[in-house]
Amino acid sequence: MTKLLANERIDDLNINGYKIIQNTKEFCFGMDAVLLSSFAKVKKGQTVVDLCTGTGVIPILLAAKTDASRLFGIEIQEACANMASRSIGLNNLDDKINIINGDINKAKSLLGNMQVNVVTCNPPYMNDMHGIKNPSLPKAIARHEIYCNLEDVVRVSSQLLKVSGSLFMVHRPFRLVEIISTMAKYKLEPKRIRLVYPYIDREPNMVLIEAVKGGKSMIKVDPPLIVYKEINKYTDEIYDIYGYERDGR
Amino acid sequence: MTKLLANERIDDLNINGYKIIQNTKEFCFGMDAVLLSSFAKVKKGQTVVDLCTGTGVIPILLAAKTDASRLFGIEIQEACANMASRSIGLNNLDDKINIINGDINKAKSLLGNMQVNVVTCNPPYMNDMHGIKNPSLPKAIARHEIYCNLEDVVRVSSQLLKVSGSLFMVHRPFRLVEIISTMAKYKLEPKRIRLVYPYIDREPNMVLIEAVKGGKSMIKVDPPLIVYKEINKYTDEIYDIYGYERDGR
Repeated sequence: MTKLLANERIDDLNINGYKIIQNTKEFCFGMDAVLLSSFAKVKKGQTVVDLCTGTGVIPILLAAKTDASRLFGIEIQEACANMASRSIGLNNLDDKINIINGDINKAKSLLGNMQVNVVTCNPPYMNDMHGIKNPSLPKAIARHEIYCNLEDVVRVSSQLLKVSGSLFMVHRPFRLVEIISTMAKYKLEPKRIRLVYPYIDREPNMVLIEAVKGGKSMIKVDPPLIVYKEINKYTDEIYDIYGYERDGR
Repeated sequence: MTKLLANERIDDLNINGYKIIQNTKEFCFGMDAVLLSSFAKVKKGQTVVDLCTGTGVIPILLAAKTDASRLFGIEIQEACANMASRSIGLNNLDDKINIINGDINKAKSLLGNMQVNVVTCNPPYMNDMHGIKNPSLPKAIARHEIYCNLEDVVRVSSQLLKVSGSLFMVHRPFRLVEIISTMAKYKLEPKRIRLVYPYIDREPNMVLIEAVKGGKSMIKVDPPLIVYKEINKYTDEIYDIYGYERDGR
């Protein structure tokens, strides 16, 4: 039986029987990570690095959904990286996924100058430090650009990717212009974008974006991803992404 | 009774009793122009320039929908500019709207260095000249970047706008990254964007974008604009924008 630390619990990921350890007092993964793992395209035998991996949910989901050969997750918070490593062990994925405790700004050397096919990232969204009482708290670090900002994520992704490799990122729509400009600065061309609207008549609260290193200028905008069809009732696409049965399950 | 030239017909604009003359053999305005006229915000007493005005449909619709004090439409094709001027006369709007026959690249001098509050533009979308048999044909000029390209539209808009003035443009989503980069180059900050999806499960075919001269980086993405709820049946929002009665009309 897996040993859990204080406030930890095990959640079912609903795919391949995989599970994940989360600390209920700290940052638990959200729909963003699940949608990103579905939006990302990884071909058979490819290598993936997940920046700001947190609980390790993205590499675990990608191990289930794709034929990636190797996956790495980089996480700056030691306790969180340890918990993610224990989740990898719990799923017997130690041969496939490595969690590295370190600063993404040193990712290139942490990975021994390896170049990869795919980078994924569900980074801290907020660039406004206003109102943060304690920037050393794990939740603050996961949500605000305390240890890394958008430019770090994009620059590091560009360093790590082979030419024609893809960065898949989820972020907030209000930063879309900044995201696109920063990608251009580091030769990552946005090639596909998908907006996630909570309801059909509401503003989007997430954007999924794929950028290709050295790609040409031409973007594909995907159909809208609508989350709820009515209160407490997901659309069929969300049920599919989560691997649940549809209505009436 | 209005005198019409060969192949011309008069269409009802369904607002204020306004009508428009169109040449059935040439480029007739589409949904793009109607959606742009609804997306654009013009305050009482403001001055508006519509670049690449074509039939003049956008200034006429804005004269109906807003309290703009003066509107100008610039059109490079003489026959088209003449037809637009006759539509202005037909609606008794000569005191409010001026159609100028000229090249938008000379808009600054054509307008006597006037600075305006709002620029609108439904420009030629296509940058690929492949397959154009006759680039002097009016339809080709309206659709392809023969006399002006995206950068011309953005540069000229920036020249014409007062600080804090807005450009409202409709374009194709596949050029979104180029649009945003070009706007940045000319100090126009994208502040609001809306994607137009033909159906809820389809890729968008239009993007509406507002950029503010000298604005700060922070964009608002509007709810999705869905055109059809089923085949041949518009959504309520489209009926409202066109000023039609809803289902069962």
